[in-house]
Amino acid sequence: MDAAETARRCADAMYAADLASQQLGITISEVGPGRATAAMTVTDVMVNGHGICHGGYVFTLADTAFAFACNTYDERTVAAGADVTFLEPVRAGTDLVATATERARRGRSGVYDVTVRTAGGVTVAEFRGRSRSLGEPML
Amino acid sequence: MDAAETARRCADAMYAADLASQQLGITISEVGPGRATAAMTVTDVMVNGHGICHGGYVFTLADTAFAFACNTYDERTVAAGADVTFLEPVRAGTDLVATATERARRGRSGVYDVTVRTAGGVTVAEFRGRSRSLGEPML
Amino acid sequence: MDAAETARRCADAMYAADLASQQLGITISEVGPGRATAAMTVTDVMVNGHGICHGGYVFTLADTAFAFACNTYDERTVAAGADVTFLEPVRAGTDLVATATERARRGRSGVYDVTVRTAGGVTVAEFRGRSRSLGEPML
Amino acid sequence: MDAAETARRCADAMYAADLASQQLGITISEVGPGRATAAMTVTDVMVNGHGICHGGYVFTLADTAFAFACNTYDERTVAAGADVTFLEPVRAGTDLVATATERARRGRSGVYDVTVRTAGGVTVAEFRGRSRSLGEPML
Repeated sequence: MDAAETARRCADAMYAADLASQQLGITISEVGPGRATAAMTVTDVMVNGHGICHGGYVFTLADTAFAFACNTYDERTVAAGADVTFLEPVRAGTDLVATATERARRGRSGVYDVTVRTAGGVTVAEFRGRSRSLGEPML
Repeated sequence: MDAAETARRCADAMYAADLASQQLGITISEVGPGRATAAMTVTDVMVNGHGICHGGYVFTLADTAFAFACNTYDERTVAAGADVTFLEPVRAGTDLVATATERARRGRSGVYDVTVRTAGGVTVAEFRGRSRSLGEPML
Repeated sequence: MDAAETARRCADAMYAADLASQQLGITISEVGPGRATAAMTVTDVMVNGHGICHGGYVFTLADTAFAFACNTYDERTVAAGADVTFLEPVRAGTDLVATATERARRGRSGVYDVTVRTAGGVTVAEFRGRSRSLGEPML
Repeated sequence: MDAAETARRCADAMYAADLASQQLGITISEVGPGRATAAMTVTDVMVNGHGICHGGYVFTLADTAFAFACNTYDERTVAAGADVTFLEPVRAGTDLVATATERARRGRSGVYDVTVRTAGGVTVAEFRGRSRSLGEPML
Protein backbone atom coordinates (compact mmCIF):
# COMPACT_ATOMS: atom_id res chain seq x y z
CA MET A 1 0.00 0.00 0.00
CA ASP A 2 1.59 3.29 -1.04
CA ALA A 3 1.45 6.59 0.89
CA ALA A 4 -1.48 8.00 -1.07
CA GLU A 5 -3.50 4.83 -0.59
CA THR A 6 -2.68 4.77 3.15
CA ALA A 7 -3.79 8.38 3.46
CA ARG A 8 -7.07 7.69 1.70
CA ARG A 9 -7.84 4.60 3.80
CA CYS A 10 -7.07 6.44 7.04
CA ALA A 11 -9.45 9.22 5.99
CA ASP A 12 -12.18 6.71 5.14
CA ALA A 13 -11.81 5.00 8.52
CA MET A 14 -11.81 8.34 10.37
CA TYR A 15 -14.80 9.71 8.51
CA ALA A 16 -16.93 6.61 9.07
CA ALA A 17 -16.57 7.11 12.84
CA ASP A 18 -16.71 10.92 12.82
CA LEU A 19 -20.32 11.65 13.72
CA ALA A 20 -19.48 15.27 14.50
CA SER A 21 -18.22 16.04 11.00
CA GLN A 22 -21.00 14.04 9.35
CA GLN A 23 -23.69 15.79 11.37
CA LEU A 24 -22.27 19.23 10.45
CA GLY A 25 -22.35 18.33 6.77
CA ILE A 26 -18.54 18.48 6.52
CA THR A 27 -17.16 16.59 3.54
CA ILE A 28 -13.53 15.58 2.96
CA SER A 29 -12.84 16.30 -0.66
CA GLU A 30 -9.12 15.59 -1.00
CA VAL A 31 -6.60 13.73 1.13
CA GLY A 32 -2.92 12.87 0.68
CA PRO A 33 0.12 12.39 2.93
CA GLY A 34 0.08 15.32 5.35
CA ARG A 35 -2.78 17.16 3.68
CA ALA A 36 -6.58 17.27 3.53
CA THR A 37 -9.38 19.52 2.30
CA ALA A 38 -12.69 19.83 4.13
CA ALA A 39 -15.82 21.72 3.07
CA MET A 40 -18.95 22.89 4.93
CA THR A 41 -21.89 25.18 4.30
CA VAL A 42 -22.67 27.64 7.08
CA THR A 43 -26.26 27.06 8.17
CA ASP A 44 -28.72 29.32 9.99
CA VAL A 45 -28.14 27.57 13.32
CA MET A 46 -24.42 28.34 13.16
CA VAL A 47 -25.05 32.07 13.64
CA ASN A 48 -23.93 33.76 16.88
CA GLY A 49 -25.11 36.80 18.84
CA HIS A 50 -23.58 39.20 16.29
CA GLY A 51 -25.57 37.64 13.43
CA ILE A 52 -22.49 36.01 11.85
CA CYS A 53 -21.11 32.48 11.86
CA HIS A 54 -19.94 31.49 15.36
CA GLY A 55 -16.14 31.34 15.34
CA GLY A 56 -16.43 27.89 16.86
CA TYR A 57 -17.81 26.51 13.61
CA VAL A 58 -15.08 28.12 11.50
CA PHE A 59 -12.57 26.62 13.93
CA THR A 60 -14.32 23.23 13.79
CA LEU A 61 -14.05 23.09 10.00
CA ALA A 62 -10.34 24.01 10.15
CA ASP A 63 -9.76 21.54 12.99
CA THR A 64 -11.41 18.79 10.95
CA ALA A 65 -9.16 19.42 7.94
CA PHE A 66 -6.19 19.41 10.33
CA ALA A 67 -7.30 16.14 11.96
CA PHE A 68 -7.61 14.39 8.61
CA ALA A 69 -4.26 15.79 7.39
CA CYS A 70 -2.29 14.63 10.44
CA ASN A 71 -3.91 11.17 10.40
CA THR A 72 -2.70 10.18 6.94
CA TYR A 73 0.27 8.05 8.03
CA ASP A 74 -1.61 5.20 9.74
CA GLU A 75 -0.57 6.55 13.13
CA ARG A 76 -3.38 7.62 15.41
CA THR A 77 -2.74 11.34 16.02
CA VAL A 78 -4.66 13.89 18.10
CA ALA A 79 -4.71 17.65 18.33
CA ALA A 80 -2.51 18.99 21.14
CA GLY A 81 -3.59 22.54 20.42
CA ALA A 82 -4.16 25.18 17.78
CA ASP A 83 -4.09 28.91 17.11
CA VAL A 84 -6.64 30.64 14.90
CA THR A 85 -6.87 34.17 13.48
CA PHE A 86 -10.29 35.28 12.25
CA LEU A 87 -9.99 37.61 9.25
CA GLU A 88 -13.56 38.10 8.00
CA PRO A 89 -17.09 37.70 9.32
CA VAL A 90 -18.91 34.82 7.59
CA ARG A 91 -22.62 34.94 6.77
CA ALA A 92 -25.10 32.06 6.90
CA GLY A 93 -25.32 30.31 3.55
CA THR A 94 -21.60 30.67 2.79
CA ASP A 95 -19.75 27.65 1.43
CA LEU A 96 -16.41 27.28 3.24
CA VAL A 97 -13.38 25.25 2.21
CA ALA A 98 -10.50 24.48 4.59
CA THR A 99 -7.17 23.34 3.16
CA ALA A 100 -4.68 21.73 5.56
CA THR A 101 -1.00 21.26 4.76
CA GLU A 102 1.82 19.93 6.86
CA ARG A 103 4.49 22.44 7.83
CA ALA A 104 6.72 20.28 10.02
CA ARG A 105 6.89 16.89 11.73
CA ARG A 106 9.43 15.92 14.34
CA GLY A 107 9.14 12.71 16.34
CA ARG A 108 5.55 12.48 17.52
CA SER A 109 4.83 16.20 17.06
CA GLY A 110 3.61 18.03 13.97
CA VAL A 111 2.62 21.52 12.83
CA TYR A 112 -0.15 21.97 10.24
CA ASP A 113 -1.43 25.13 8.55
CA VAL A 114 -5.07 25.40 7.57
CA THR A 115 -6.52 28.22 5.47
CA VAL A 116 -10.31 28.63 5.46
CA ARG A 117 -11.72 30.32 2.37
CA THR A 118 -15.14 31.01 0.93
CA ALA A 119 -16.00 29.20 -2.30
CA GLY A 120 -15.20 32.55 -3.94
CA GLY A 121 -11.63 32.41 -2.66
CA VAL A 122 -11.75 34.98 0.15
CA THR A 123 -9.66 33.85 3.13
CA VAL A 124 -11.74 34.08 6.32
CA ALA A 125 -9.41 32.40 8.83
CA GLU A 126 -5.85 31.17 9.26
CA PHE A 127 -5.36 28.21 11.63
CA ARG A 128 -2.21 26.48 12.83
CA GLY A 129 -2.59 23.12 14.53
CA ARG A 130 -0.18 21.22 16.76
CA SER A 131 -0.50 17.45 16.55
CA ARG A 132 0.67 14.63 18.77
CA SER A 133 0.89 11.03 17.64
CA LEU A 134 -0.27 8.33 20.06
CA GLY A 135 2.09 5.78 18.49
CA GLU A 136 -0.73 3.38 17.54
CA PRO A 137 -1.78 2.29 14.05
CA MET A 138 -5.16 3.45 12.80
CA LEU A 139 -5.98 0.79 10.19
CA MET B 1 -27.12 51.26 35.15
CA ASP B 2 -24.07 49.88 36.97
CA ALA B 3 -21.35 47.66 35.46
CA ALA B 4 -22.89 44.39 36.67
CA GLU B 5 -26.30 45.34 35.26
CA THR B 6 -24.72 46.38 31.94
CA ALA B 7 -22.90 43.07 31.74
CA ARG B 8 -26.07 41.10 32.39
CA ARG B 9 -28.12 43.04 29.82
CA CYS B 10 -25.42 42.63 27.16
CA ALA B 11 -25.39 38.87 27.81
CA ASP B 12 -29.18 38.69 27.57
CA ALA B 13 -29.15 40.58 24.26
CA MET B 14 -26.33 38.41 22.88
CA TYR B 15 -27.91 35.14 23.97
CA ALA B 16 -31.31 35.98 22.47
CA ALA B 17 -29.65 36.29 19.04
CA ASP B 18 -27.14 33.47 19.47
CA LEU B 19 -28.79 30.57 17.67
CA ALA B 20 -25.52 28.63 17.59
CA SER B 21 -25.14 28.55 21.38
CA GLN B 22 -28.84 27.87 21.91
CA GLN B 23 -28.84 25.01 19.45
CA LEU B 24 -25.80 23.41 21.13
CA GLY B 25 -27.53 23.58 24.50
CA ILE B 26 -24.95 26.05 25.82
CA THR B 27 -26.16 28.02 28.83
CA ILE B 28 -24.59 31.15 30.29
CA SER B 29 -24.68 30.70 34.01
CA GLU B 30 -22.76 33.70 35.32
CA VAL B 31 -21.76 37.03 33.78
CA GLY B 32 -20.00 40.12 35.14
CA PRO B 33 -17.69 42.82 33.81
CA GLY B 34 -15.01 40.98 31.83
CA ARG B 35 -16.12 37.50 32.83
CA ALA B 36 -18.63 34.80 31.90
CA THR B 37 -19.29 31.12 32.55
CA ALA B 38 -20.78 28.83 29.90
CA ALA B 39 -21.88 25.20 30.25
CA MET B 40 -22.64 22.43 27.73
CA THR B 41 -23.22 18.69 27.78
CA VAL B 42 -21.25 16.71 25.18
CA THR B 43 -23.74 14.79 23.08
CA ASP B 44 -23.33 11.69 20.90
CA VAL B 45 -23.19 13.74 17.69
CA MET B 46 -20.20 15.73 18.99
CA VAL B 47 -17.94 12.67 18.79
CA ASN B 48 -15.09 12.61 16.23
CA GLY B 49 -13.24 9.85 14.39
CA HIS B 50 -11.28 8.87 17.53
CA GLY B 51 -14.51 8.30 19.51
CA ILE B 52 -14.01 11.40 21.68
CA CYS B 53 -15.51 14.88 21.65
CA HIS B 54 -14.41 16.82 18.53
CA GLY B 55 -11.99 19.53 19.61
CA GLY B 56 -14.12 21.96 17.67
CA TYR B 57 -16.93 21.64 20.21
CA VAL B 58 -14.60 22.11 23.18
CA PHE B 59 -13.26 25.21 21.40
CA THR B 60 -16.79 26.40 20.65
CA LEU B 61 -17.79 26.25 24.30
CA ALA B 62 -14.64 28.16 25.31
CA ASP B 63 -15.14 30.66 22.50
CA THR B 64 -18.71 31.26 23.66
CA ALA B 65 -17.63 31.99 27.24
CA PHE B 66 -14.97 34.33 25.79
CA ALA B 67 -17.50 36.11 23.54
CA PHE B 68 -19.86 36.74 26.44
CA ALA B 69 -17.01 37.91 28.71
CA CYS B 70 -15.62 40.44 26.23
CA ASN B 71 -19.09 41.80 25.41
CA THR B 72 -19.94 42.93 28.94
CA TYR B 73 -19.11 46.63 28.48
CA ASP B 74 -21.85 47.59 26.00
CA GLU B 75 -19.27 47.74 23.23
CA ARG B 76 -19.76 45.30 20.38
CA THR B 77 -16.61 43.15 20.42
CA VAL B 78 -15.54 40.25 18.19
CA ALA B 79 -12.92 37.53 18.39
CA ALA B 80 -9.73 38.42 16.50
CA GLY B 81 -8.22 35.05 17.30
CA ALA B 82 -7.53 32.46 19.94
CA ASP B 83 -5.13 29.76 21.04
CA VAL B 84 -6.25 26.51 22.62
CA THR B 85 -4.39 23.66 24.32
CA PHE B 86 -6.25 20.36 24.66
CA LEU B 87 -5.30 18.53 27.87
CA GLU B 88 -7.69 15.60 28.12
CA PRO B 89 -9.96 13.61 25.82
CA VAL B 90 -13.65 14.22 26.61
CA ARG B 91 -16.28 11.48 26.38
CA ALA B 92 -19.88 11.85 25.19
CA GLY B 93 -22.18 12.58 28.11
CA THR B 94 -19.66 14.79 29.93
CA ASP B 95 -20.90 18.08 31.39
CA LEU B 96 -18.39 20.83 30.58
CA VAL B 97 -18.06 24.25 32.18
CA ALA B 98 -15.99 27.07 30.62
CA THR B 99 -14.94 30.00 32.80
CA ALA B 100 -13.71 33.14 31.03
CA THR B 101 -11.81 35.92 32.77
CA GLU B 102 -10.24 39.07 31.41
CA ARG B 103 -6.47 39.20 31.56
CA ALA B 104 -5.84 42.56 29.84
CA ARG B 105 -7.58 45.30 27.88
CA ARG B 106 -5.82 48.05 26.02
CA GLY B 107 -7.63 50.39 23.65
CA ARG B 108 -9.85 48.21 21.46
CA SER B 109 -7.90 45.00 22.14
CA GLY B 110 -8.34 42.49 24.95
CA VAL B 111 -6.92 39.17 26.15
CA TYR B 112 -9.19 36.63 27.89
CA ASP B 113 -8.36 33.29 29.50
CA VAL B 114 -10.88 30.48 29.43
CA THR B 115 -10.51 27.22 31.34
CA VAL B 116 -12.75 24.31 30.34
CA ARG B 117 -13.42 21.77 33.09
CA THR B 118 -15.62 18.77 33.58
CA ALA B 119 -18.36 19.11 36.19
CA GLY B 120 -16.01 17.06 38.39
CA GLY B 121 -13.36 19.77 38.13
CA VAL B 122 -10.85 18.17 35.74
CA THR B 123 -9.39 20.76 33.36
CA VAL B 124 -9.72 19.53 29.76
CA ALA B 125 -8.61 22.63 27.82
CA GLU B 126 -6.96 26.02 28.28
CA PHE B 127 -7.98 28.74 25.81
CA ARG B 128 -6.73 32.29 25.37
CA GLY B 129 -8.83 34.64 23.25
CA ARG B 130 -7.88 37.92 21.58
CA SER B 131 -10.76 40.38 21.26
CA ARG B 132 -11.28 43.47 19.14
CA SER B 133 -13.95 46.07 19.87
CA LEU B 134 -15.87 47.49 16.92
CA GLY B 135 -16.52 50.75 18.79
CA GLU B 136 -20.31 50.41 18.61
CA PRO B 137 -22.75 50.07 21.52
CA MET B 138 -24.57 46.75 21.89
CA LEU B 139 -27.68 47.79 23.83
CA MET C 1 14.35 17.76 50.29
CA ASP C 2 10.93 19.42 50.09
CA ALA C 3 9.31 20.91 46.96
CA ALA C 4 10.40 24.49 47.70
CA GLU C 5 14.00 23.41 48.28
CA THR C 6 13.98 21.33 45.08
CA ALA C 7 12.65 24.31 43.12
CA ARG C 8 15.35 26.59 44.49
CA ARG C 9 18.16 24.13 43.77
CA CYS C 10 16.94 23.55 40.22
CA ALA C 11 16.89 27.31 39.65
CA ASP C 12 20.41 27.69 41.03
CA ALA C 13 21.69 24.90 38.76
CA MET C 14 19.92 26.36 35.72
CA TYR C 15 21.09 29.90 36.36
CA ALA C 16 24.74 28.90 36.82
CA ALA C 17 24.73 27.47 33.28
CA ASP C 18 22.47 30.11 31.72
CA LEU C 19 24.96 32.45 30.06
CA ALA C 20 22.20 34.05 27.98
CA SER C 21 20.20 35.22 31.00
CA GLN C 22 23.33 36.28 32.87
CA GLN C 23 24.63 38.28 29.94
CA LEU C 24 21.28 40.09 29.55
CA GLY C 25 21.33 41.05 33.22
CA ILE C 26 18.27 38.91 33.96
CA THR C 27 17.91 38.02 37.63
CA ILE C 28 15.64 35.35 39.11
CA SER C 29 14.11 36.89 42.18
CA GLU C 30 11.63 34.26 43.33
CA VAL C 31 11.15 30.58 42.57
CA GLY C 32 8.77 27.92 43.90
CA PRO C 33 7.09 24.78 42.55
CA GLY C 34 5.68 25.78 39.14
CA ARG C 35 6.49 29.47 39.46
CA ALA C 36 9.34 31.95 38.97
CA THR C 37 9.90 35.68 38.70
CA ALA C 38 12.55 37.18 36.43
CA ALA C 39 13.63 40.82 36.12
CA MET C 40 15.61 42.76 33.49
CA THR C 41 16.37 46.38 32.68
CA VAL C 42 15.86 47.36 29.02
CA THR C 43 19.17 48.75 27.75
CA ASP C 44 19.95 51.01 24.80
CA VAL C 45 21.10 48.11 22.64
CA MET C 46 17.70 46.39 23.02
CA VAL C 47 15.97 49.08 20.94
CA ASN C 48 14.55 48.19 17.52
CA GLY C 49 13.89 50.14 14.33
CA HIS C 50 10.83 51.85 15.84
CA GLY C 51 12.89 53.23 18.76
CA ILE C 52 11.27 50.89 21.31
CA CYS C 53 12.40 47.66 22.97
CA HIS C 54 12.64 44.82 20.42
CA GLY C 55 9.81 42.38 21.09
CA GLY C 56 12.41 39.63 21.09
CA TYR C 57 13.83 40.90 24.37
CA VAL C 58 10.40 41.15 26.02
CA PHE C 59 9.77 37.60 24.85
CA THR C 60 13.19 36.47 26.11
CA LEU C 61 12.50 37.77 29.61
CA ALA C 62 9.10 36.03 29.66
CA ASP C 63 10.60 32.85 28.23
CA THR C 64 13.26 32.88 30.95
CA ALA C 65 10.67 33.15 33.72
CA PHE C 66 8.75 30.32 32.03
CA ALA C 67 11.88 28.14 31.75
CA PHE C 68 12.68 28.56 35.43
CA ALA C 69 9.06 27.93 36.46
CA CYS C 70 8.71 24.68 34.50
CA ASN C 71 12.08 23.37 35.72
CA THR C 72 11.24 23.39 39.42
CA TYR C 73 10.42 19.68 39.77
CA ASP C 74 13.90 18.24 39.13
CA GLU C 75 12.78 17.08 35.69
CA ARG C 76 14.63 18.60 32.76
CA THR C 77 11.95 20.44 30.79
CA VAL C 78 12.17 22.47 27.57
CA ALA C 79 9.92 24.94 25.80
CA ALA C 80 7.83 23.30 23.07
CA GLY C 81 6.36 26.64 22.07
CA ALA C 82 4.77 29.85 23.26
CA ASP C 83 2.32 32.57 22.34
CA VAL C 84 2.87 36.23 23.21
CA THR C 85 0.66 39.32 22.99
CA PHE C 86 2.38 42.69 23.11
CA LEU C 87 0.26 45.30 24.90
CA GLU C 88 2.51 48.35 25.27
CA PRO C 89 5.69 49.71 23.72
CA VAL C 90 8.61 49.62 26.17
CA ARG C 91 11.26 52.36 26.32
CA ALA C 92 14.98 51.90 26.99
CA GLY C 93 15.71 52.24 30.69
CA THR C 94 12.51 50.49 31.79
CA ASP C 95 12.75 47.89 34.56
CA LEU C 96 10.67 44.83 33.58
CA VAL C 97 9.44 42.03 35.82
CA ALA C 98 8.07 38.75 34.43
CA THR C 99 5.98 36.52 36.69
CA ALA C 100 5.43 32.92 35.58
CA THR C 101 2.76 30.66 37.06
CA GLU C 102 1.72 27.14 36.15
CA ARG C 103 -1.73 26.79 34.66
CA ALA C 104 -1.79 23.05 33.93
CA ARG C 105 0.44 19.97 33.83
CA ARG C 106 -0.55 16.68 32.29
CA GLY C 107 1.97 13.88 31.76
CA ARG C 108 5.07 15.45 30.24
CA SER C 109 3.25 18.58 29.01
CA GLY C 110 2.60 21.84 30.84
CA VAL C 111 1.03 25.26 30.26
CA TYR C 112 2.50 28.34 31.98
CA ASP C 113 1.28 31.95 31.99
CA VAL C 114 3.77 34.79 32.20
CA THR C 115 2.82 38.43 32.69
CA VAL C 116 5.49 41.05 31.95
CA ARG C 117 5.04 44.33 33.82
CA THR C 118 7.03 47.50 34.32
CA ALA C 119 8.32 48.14 37.84
CA GLY C 120 5.38 50.58 38.04
CA GLY C 121 2.91 47.74 37.49
CA VAL C 122 1.85 48.37 33.88
CA THR C 123 1.39 45.10 31.99
CA VAL C 124 3.34 45.22 28.72
CA ALA C 125 2.97 41.63 27.51
CA GLU C 126 1.07 38.41 28.18
CA PHE C 127 2.88 35.16 27.35
CA ARG C 128 1.69 31.56 27.47
CA GLY C 129 4.33 28.85 27.27
CA ARG C 130 3.98 25.16 26.42
CA SER C 131 6.52 22.92 28.13
CA ARG C 132 7.70 19.39 27.49
CA SER C 133 9.59 17.31 30.03
CA LEU C 134 12.51 15.21 28.79
CA GLY C 135 12.04 12.70 31.59
CA GLU C 136 15.56 13.24 33.01
CA PRO C 137 16.48 14.58 36.44
CA MET C 138 18.18 17.98 36.58
CA LEU C 139 20.06 17.79 39.89
CA MET D 1 9.00 54.31 -6.62
CA ASP D 2 7.78 50.75 -7.20
CA ALA D 3 6.83 48.21 -4.53
CA ALA D 4 10.22 46.46 -4.51
CA GLU D 5 12.05 49.79 -4.15
CA THR D 6 9.68 50.89 -1.34
CA ALA D 7 10.30 47.62 0.47
CA ARG D 8 14.06 48.01 0.22
CA ARG D 9 14.04 51.62 1.41
CA CYS D 10 11.81 50.77 4.38
CA ALA D 11 14.20 47.98 5.35
CA ASP D 12 17.20 50.29 5.08
CA ALA D 13 15.50 52.91 7.27
CA MET D 14 14.46 50.28 9.83
CA TYR D 15 17.87 48.63 9.97
CA ALA D 16 19.73 51.90 10.46
CA ALA D 17 17.74 52.51 13.66
CA ASP D 18 17.62 48.89 14.82
CA LEU D 19 20.41 48.72 17.38
CA ALA D 20 19.06 45.44 18.75
CA SER D 21 19.41 43.58 15.46
CA GLN D 22 22.76 45.19 14.68
CA GLN D 23 24.16 44.30 18.08
CA LEU D 24 23.05 40.67 17.70
CA GLY D 25 24.80 40.43 14.34
CA ILE D 26 21.49 39.94 12.52
CA THR D 27 21.66 40.77 8.82
CA ILE D 28 18.74 41.30 6.44
CA SER D 29 19.65 39.50 3.28
CA GLU D 30 16.52 39.81 1.15
CA VAL D 31 13.45 42.04 1.31
CA GLY D 32 10.40 42.45 -0.92
CA PRO D 33 6.74 43.38 -0.49
CA GLY D 34 5.52 41.30 2.45
CA ARG D 35 8.68 39.27 2.84
CA ALA D 36 12.14 39.38 4.39
CA THR D 37 15.02 37.06 5.24
CA ALA D 38 17.18 37.55 8.33
CA ALA D 39 20.32 35.65 9.36
CA MET D 40 22.22 35.31 12.64
CA THR D 41 24.99 33.15 14.08
CA VAL D 42 24.29 31.67 17.52
CA THR D 43 27.10 32.79 19.83
CA ASP D 44 28.34 31.36 23.12
CA VAL D 45 26.49 33.98 25.17
CA MET D 46 23.16 32.94 23.65
CA VAL D 47 23.26 29.57 25.44
CA ASN D 48 20.71 28.83 28.20
CA GLY D 49 20.70 26.60 31.27
CA HIS D 50 20.27 23.46 29.16
CA GLY D 51 23.42 24.22 27.13
CA ILE D 52 21.45 25.10 23.97
CA CYS D 53 20.46 28.37 22.33
CA HIS D 54 17.96 30.27 24.50
CA GLY D 55 14.57 30.16 22.77
CA GLY D 56 14.41 33.92 23.18
CA TYR D 57 17.16 34.36 20.60
CA VAL D 58 15.52 32.01 18.10
CA PHE D 59 12.32 33.99 18.62
CA THR D 60 14.18 37.29 18.26
CA LEU D 61 15.60 36.30 14.88
CA ALA D 62 12.16 35.20 13.66
CA ASP D 63 10.56 38.34 15.08
CA THR D 64 13.13 40.48 13.26
CA ALA D 65 12.38 38.83 9.90
CA PHE D 66 8.67 39.33 10.64
CA ALA D 67 9.18 43.03 11.54
CA PHE D 68 11.05 43.70 8.31
CA ALA D 69 8.47 41.78 6.22
CA CYS D 70 5.47 43.64 7.61
CA ASN D 71 7.17 47.03 7.25
CA THR D 72 7.67 46.87 3.49
CA TYR D 73 4.66 49.00 2.48
CA ASP D 74 5.80 52.36 3.92
CA GLU D 75 3.30 52.02 6.74
CA ARG D 76 4.75 51.86 10.22
CA THR D 77 3.65 48.47 11.57
CA VAL D 78 4.28 46.79 14.92
CA ALA D 79 3.97 43.27 16.27
CA ALA D 80 0.68 42.68 18.08
CA GLY D 81 1.72 39.17 19.00
CA ALA D 82 3.20 35.91 17.80
CA ASP D 83 3.18 32.17 18.31
CA VAL D 84 6.29 30.03 18.05
CA THR D 85 6.89 26.27 17.99
CA PHE D 86 10.40 25.07 18.77
CA LEU D 87 11.28 21.94 16.78
CA GLU D 88 14.98 21.36 17.41
CA PRO D 89 17.61 22.36 19.96
CA VAL D 90 20.20 24.72 18.44
CA ARG D 91 23.88 24.61 19.38
CA ALA D 92 26.24 27.58 19.74
CA GLY D 93 28.02 28.27 16.45
CA THR D 94 24.99 27.44 14.30
CA ASP D 95 24.14 29.79 11.44
CA LEU D 96 20.38 30.44 11.41
CA VAL D 97 18.26 31.87 8.60
CA ALA D 98 14.69 33.11 9.15
CA THR D 99 12.40 33.53 6.15
CA ALA D 100 9.24 35.60 6.62
CA THR D 101 6.32 35.56 4.20
CA GLU D 102 2.94 37.26 4.35
CA ARG D 103 -0.04 34.96 4.75
CA ALA D 104 -2.85 37.52 4.99
CA ARG D 105 -3.49 41.24 5.38
CA ARG D 106 -6.87 42.76 6.19
CA GLY D 107 -7.23 46.43 7.06
CA ARG D 108 -4.52 47.24 9.58
CA SER D 109 -3.94 43.61 10.59
CA GLY D 110 -1.61 41.05 9.05
CA VAL D 111 -0.47 37.45 9.55
CA TYR D 112 3.11 36.45 8.69
CA ASP D 113 4.78 33.02 8.75
CA VAL D 114 8.46 32.73 9.58
CA THR D 115 10.48 29.52 9.28
CA VAL D 116 13.84 29.40 11.05
CA ARG D 117 16.34 26.98 9.53
CA THR D 118 19.99 26.12 9.99
CA ALA D 119 22.29 26.95 7.08
CA GLY D 120 22.06 23.22 6.32
CA GLY D 121 18.30 23.48 5.84
CA VAL D 122 17.00 21.87 9.03
CA THR D 123 13.91 23.68 10.32
CA VAL D 124 14.38 24.55 14.00
CA ALA D 125 11.31 26.74 14.62
CA GLU D 126 8.00 27.80 13.07
CA PHE D 127 6.75 31.28 13.99
CA ARG D 128 3.51 33.06 13.12
CA GLY D 129 3.35 36.81 13.74
CA ARG D 130 0.34 39.10 14.02
CA SER D 131 0.98 42.65 12.84
CA ARG D 132 -0.84 45.90 13.38
CA SER D 133 -0.28 49.00 11.26
CA LEU D 134 -0.11 52.36 13.03
CA GLY D 135 -1.36 54.17 9.92
CA GLU D 136 1.76 56.35 9.61
CA PRO D 137 4.29 56.43 6.79
CA MET D 138 7.79 55.20 7.52
CA LEU D 139 9.83 57.00 4.88
